[in-house]
Amino acid sequence: MADKISGIFTPHIVPLDDDGQINEAELRRYVDWLIDKGVHGLYPNGSTGEFLRFTPDERRRIIKIVCDQAAGRVPVLAGAAEANTRETIAACETYVEYGARAVAIVSPFYYRLSPESVYAYFREIALNSPIDVTLYNIPMFASPIDVPTIRRLSELERIVGIKDSSGDLAFMMQMIAAVRPGRPDFAFLCGWDTILMPSLIMGCDGGTHASSGVVPELTRKVFDLTTAGQLADAMPLQYQLLEFFDTALRSGDFPEGFRMGVELRGFQMGAGRQPLSDAQKTERAALKQELQQMLSNLGYMED
Amino acid sequence: MADKISGIFTPHIVPLDDDGQINEAELRRYVDWLIDKGVHGLYPNGSTGEFLRFTPDERRRIIKIVCDQAAGRVPVLAGAAEANTRETIAACETYVEYGARAVAIVSPFYYRLSPESVYAYFREIALNSPIDVTLYNIPMFASPIDVPTIRRLSELERIVGIKDSSGDLAFMMQMIAAVRPGRPDFAFLCGWDTILMPSLIMGCDGGTHASSGVVPELTRKVFDLTTAGQLADAMPLQYQLLEFFDTALRSGDFPEGFRMGVELRGFQMGAGRQPLSDAQKTERAALKQELQQMLSNLGYMED
Amino acid sequence: MADKISGIFTPHIVPLDDDGQINEAELRRYVDWLIDKGVHGLYPNGSTGEFLRFTPDERRRIIKIVCDQAAGRVPVLAGAAEANTRETIAACETYVEYGARAVAIVSPFYYRLSPESVYAYFREIALNSPIDVTLYNIPMFASPIDVPTIRRLSELERIVGIKDSSGDLAFMMQMIAAVRPGRPDFAFLCGWDTILMPSLIMGCDGGTHASSGVVPELTRKVFDLTTAGQLADAMPLQYQLLEFFDTALRSGDFPEGFRMGVELRGFQMGAGRQPLSDAQKTERAALKQELQQMLSNLGYMED
Amino acid sequence: MADKISGIFTPHIVPLDDDGQINEAELRRYVDWLIDKGVHGLYPNGSTGEFLRFTPDERRRIIKIVCDQAAGRVPVLAGAAEANTRETIAACETYVEYGARAVAIVSPFYYRLSPESVYAYFREIALNSPIDVTLYNIPMFASPIDVPTIRRLSELERIVGIKDSSGDLAFMMQMIAAVRPGRPDFAFLCGWDTILMPSLIMGCDGGTHASSGVVPELTRKVFDLTTAGQLADAMPLQYQLLEFFDTALRSGDFPEGFRMGVELRGFQMGAGRQPLSDAQKTERAALKQELQQMLSNLGYMED
Repeated sequence: MADKISGIFTPHIVPLDDDGQINEAELRRYVDWLIDKGVHGLYPNGSTGEFLRFTPDERRRIIKIVCDQAAGRVPVLAGAAEANTRETIAACETYVEYGARAVAIVSPFYYRLSPESVYAYFREIALNSPIDVTLYNIPMFASPIDVPTIRRLSELERIVGIKDSSGDLAFMMQMIAAVRPGRPDFAFLCGWDTILMPSLIMGCDGGTHASSGVVPELTRKVFDLTTAGQLADAMPLQYQLLEFFDTALRSGDFPEGFRMGVELRGFQMGAGRQPLSDAQKTERAALKQELQQMLSNLGYMED
Repeated sequence: MADKISGIFTPHIVPLDDDGQINEAELRRYVDWLIDKGVHGLYPNGSTGEFLRFTPDERRRIIKIVCDQAAGRVPVLAGAAEANTRETIAACETYVEYGARAVAIVSPFYYRLSPESVYAYFREIALNSPIDVTLYNIPMFASPIDVPTIRRLSELERIVGIKDSSGDLAFMMQMIAAVRPGRPDFAFLCGWDTILMPSLIMGCDGGTHASSGVVPELTRKVFDLTTAGQLADAMPLQYQLLEFFDTALRSGDFPEGFRMGVELRGFQMGAGRQPLSDAQKTERAALKQELQQMLSNLGYMED
Repeated sequence: MADKISGIFTPHIVPLDDDGQINEAELRRYVDWLIDKGVHGLYPNGSTGEFLRFTPDERRRIIKIVCDQAAGRVPVLAGAAEANTRETIAACETYVEYGARAVAIVSPFYYRLSPESVYAYFREIALNSPIDVTLYNIPMFASPIDVPTIRRLSELERIVGIKDSSGDLAFMMQMIAAVRPGRPDFAFLCGWDTILMPSLIMGCDGGTHASSGVVPELTRKVFDLTTAGQLADAMPLQYQLLEFFDTALRSGDFPEGFRMGVELRGFQMGAGRQPLSDAQKTERAALKQELQQMLSNLGYMED
Repeated sequence: MADKISGIFTPHIVPLDDDGQINEAELRRYVDWLIDKGVHGLYPNGSTGEFLRFTPDERRRIIKIVCDQAAGRVPVLAGAAEANTRETIAACETYVEYGARAVAIVSPFYYRLSPESVYAYFREIALNSPIDVTLYNIPMFASPIDVPTIRRLSELERIVGIKDSSGDLAFMMQMIAAVRPGRPDFAFLCGWDTILMPSLIMGCDGGTHASSGVVPELTRKVFDLTTAGQLADAMPLQYQLLEFFDTALRSGDFPEGFRMGVELRGFQMGAGRQPLSDAQKTERAALKQELQQMLSNLGYMED
């Protein structure tokens, strides 16, 4: 049995070139930098990675590049949601060959499905996937996965964990209470950066944090200090993380603030695929300045 | 200038074969039946049409079949949302060649975008599309398009209408008040079947109704009687439409109830792409029976 | 059996004096004006009337004054919700003596109660009230009353109607479809000013509109023309009502815009009991100017 | 300057007699029991205490009894929200004489007020209250108090803390980050029982927990162990608290499950003032049994 998934997985943004295409060289350079800075794993094609704004072929290429560049140094959690279960299962078959550790499948979105349909969807994928599956709960964007559904799904061996981006620690604790007794190997990853530290204390195994794509040193330190029980030291860093995360969230529509942050760390990210109005372009410059000031204050801007 | 879009456009479901693939013959037969029953237009790749559960290639094929089969008898409003503006514009280029009257583009979904981003998104498409564009507002599934944004977008000539599935008549009236004075040719289509009649009275030009894929005779009669001012006759039919729509909505997750309805009218729809649990399969039989009873009561079941 | 409740009932604001106390003289003058301008009934202690910001004794006094001043010229629908069912029933006993036609009881608020609790609450009151009861559904502020609950409650003879401020015409139609067959005498009053006209067309018996406290002539004309079938004439007036209502709603926190409106019609309303910040006081002057301009454009400002 | 408010304050239910009146003897006995079991303070007229279902006179009497019975053994945080700021300030004047440590004022409810109005409301009270004021944020029931508003209000000396029942730890951390630097004496009390432990770790000073009215020993132990840094011991107890809290929450409409819990601990609570339907009465017996089983498992049922 593979190791339990744990630590900080980075849902990273994909750099684009001047023509709006995937900038492979820069993506590889970014992957190397993230690994150097200490992230425990990579999570391409997540929400931060704007999986929906790429074509199915592009999504495959992103996973291929990231798995290839990671080259086993850190595990890859591959976002694998496609148009329907058949397409998703085909993606799972591809990603196991690319060497991904597991896939992450977001709950069905657009339509708001009932718990029973959410269950049927993940069950179908789990029974046919050749690679471990993690559930991805993000109720602000997709059909919610409720606690009874998570518990039912945890009976399927192929499902090995959940990433929860509800931001609701009480909900995560309810999940842990419902699932852990029967599945001690089931991983709980927190997807809300502000509560990384308390979620680890209450039993989570790690997190998938957009912030870790910009300040991987900070999320790593919060993880290491918290899991080592050095709470007094972890605490001010968690509040730094809150400050960064909240600022990035309100710097344009998600994930624009995080794209700016990666740019500030020295990468050519290119223009995002969601167009910006002229007013937004002007505003972006001011927001980036503000973000730069904060990163500088936190000590993350090399001069 | 092309005629203003008006009347009932059917956002139809796509029949699938036993292997889950598009059943072209049945789709063509269904298109013929809808036109025979009096729908004013067809709207493939809408929400009812489960556009998201098909691949980009399949979506193109659906439009091709429908345009070909309609053969100019009724206009086609082609759902054209793809992964990003570039892909969407490419679809627009294809659909103009297929002979679609216009495209319908749903507001960006998954991410909840700000009004400014919604504006920038549609503006980019409108400036590059070779075919008329209708906006599609469905706030329960996608980023809401608010009134000021609709007004700004109505300044772009290429944008010729909006389909609104908010179900909120007050909101539709706000839109009409904001846009019509400057753009008398701009079409307002109601996407909430229960309020077809009152929305027509308050100024809408037509509707895109899932119900019209099951009981096209009924939606047509409501339209004809209401626009002819025969309100006393339209009224009981609108309440029939309410009864059908509400029942179909609660018969499984959307659009499962409508799929059952089309089956009951004599088409082989196949299993939907969203898997059903065993419990759901059992429940489906009972719900279909109930729907059959109602359709029979309303006089739509041929014996 | 008393007549079915119908027409426009005005949920009026209560004028206060410089010391923040009820200004009885001005309230009496306002009641006279409303009746002169053609409202069909009065509805003191509604949401617009800020019932919650008065003490129990003040609420009684308001009903007493209004019933006394109306003096049978128009019926009074008395808001009677108190701290619990016992207190509410006591208020009902008082209001029948004051001569009210019926009471209006808002669904339990603050706590969001289940449908079963909402049912139990109204049932207890209905079984003990000596005066006809109308339900008041306002889901943005209070526990929603759903369609099955309304249907169950309509089995109680004492309950004679519902005021619905959901703004959701489809919901009102669902209520009508569920209740009217068994209770043709049950009154449906629309509480959302924008959809007065279409709600009357679809079967409502009248409305309780905050706007009718400011422009009673307008709501009366919309009612008269619509019920007379003169839709072409009613339509532009309904759009005027939309314009007024939306402007008043966004002019400060509800019901501040309506208070300004009544002031502009010539009444001394005094400062509301919800304090205003300095910024709000400044903003209020500008908003009032805007409202005055609109009322002048609509022809409701005497020079 | 008075001590910073800290520890567990119990928002207790009020026992009623067979006639539905306040059962003073039982209330006094309950207060004694809570103090004996180790709660740090009492919080009458909170949401759990159903303040809204009592008359203004009854609310005063409740505070009087509780202050008198506590007799200085523990501080009393008196819920003091009345119909308007004048009435609320009058209550504050009364409660300082009764010996309350501070008052708790819930944000304006029913109407959903803007941040500016929420600010103006609390400012007016704070400038006129002779007793320390704590804010009470419970966005599911009342107008939300957002972070900028809390920060502004923290500039007023009379405001000494906030109770937050959002259940959102990230939000509590945002508040702490915004307020604590300028007001180290400002108290943050968590009102969501499931996250007592993590909220204490992240900087809260205590909590006001409905559960502490039923299992005061448990909330006290979680508080003591967590603040002593004995997290491994606190953790399973916090999960016990989660289990109790979630069960009580779903045992009828709030706070019915907690009323049952207090009954199970040996007090005569009487029927609540919100009526129960026959179906609810039957269901209540089953729910109480379930709750009893859990309390017994947790070791809180004396035989």
